[in-house]
Amino acid sequence: MNAQPMQLLTILTEAVLEDTLIEEIMELGARGYTISEARGRGTHGVRTGKWAAGGNIRIEVVGDAALCRRIVERLHSQYERDYGLLMFTCAVELQN
Amino acid sequence: MNAQPMQLLTILTEAVLEDTLIEEIMELGARGYTISEARGRGTHGVRTGKWAAGGNIRIEVVGDAALCRRIVERLHSQYERDYGLLMFTCAVELQN
Amino acid sequence: MNAQPMQLLTILTEAVLEDTLIEEIMELGARGYTISEARGRGTHGVRTGKWAAGGNIRIEVVGDAALCRRIVERLHSQYERDYGLLMFTCAVELQN
Repeated sequence: MNAQPMQLLTILTEAVLEDTLIEEIMELGARGYTISEARGRGTHGVRTGKWAAGGNIRIEVVGDAALCRRIVERLHSQYERDYGLLMFTCAVELQN
Repeated sequence: MNAQPMQLLTILTEAVLEDTLIEEIMELGARGYTISEARGRGTHGVRTGKWAAGGNIRIEVVGDAALCRRIVERLHSQYERDYGLLMFTCAVELQN
Repeated sequence: MNAQPMQLLTILTEAVLEDTLIEEIMELGARGYTISEARGRGTHGVRTGKWAAGGNIRIEVVGDAALCRRIVERLHSQYERDYGLLMFTCAVELQN
């Protein structure tokens, strides 16, 4: 058993994007993902008010820095203009 | 595109406080928040057994250290005596 | 009021294990836990494809490094062979 430094990428976005983003994420090399329901409001740091108060999801991916960067870049370029999208990474230790 | 060091403030509390806390958080300068349903039990580190096993929420705010500190201070002084309340911060990189 | 360095242990696993794992976690010394519903897919870094697309939960525990290590060791030895199980820790500051 050991602890392996990884990144946790958290994506907060609109529920309507779920299937599309999952496909992108797996295609980019993720080995899995976790989805949970969320609701929220506001620009949350980067967005300019397009978020509805409901119908959001949180997608989480544990991966190395390169994978997280690829996902962030893809999602920014493809979805940020038209959808609410907030992404942040956090250093975690994968326990395996 | 760049990564910006921020804090993720996680607030675990009773669902009955949702509207009140959201108002406080936005008034203190947050640009958004995310809410998800949770359930739990116990003191979770700081509480003394007042939590019910259901009806909890998680409120998350991404912001700078000063904003998170203001929120923590306000919630402690106003709600900690009467409600279950657990707050922790985590360093994240906002990807925007 | 002060900030106390702690670990946040996140456990992603099958919903069927909820009661069993909660008992283990509390017995190992946790003072509380938070549960939320999640769904996911894939190996998520360490698993080999046994996860269903639904019926997962996220269990979170805030504690010191020793507690988190005890929980990780127990869950690995008892459940990893037969259940989907992903665990990671993250440094947090408990605000109390």
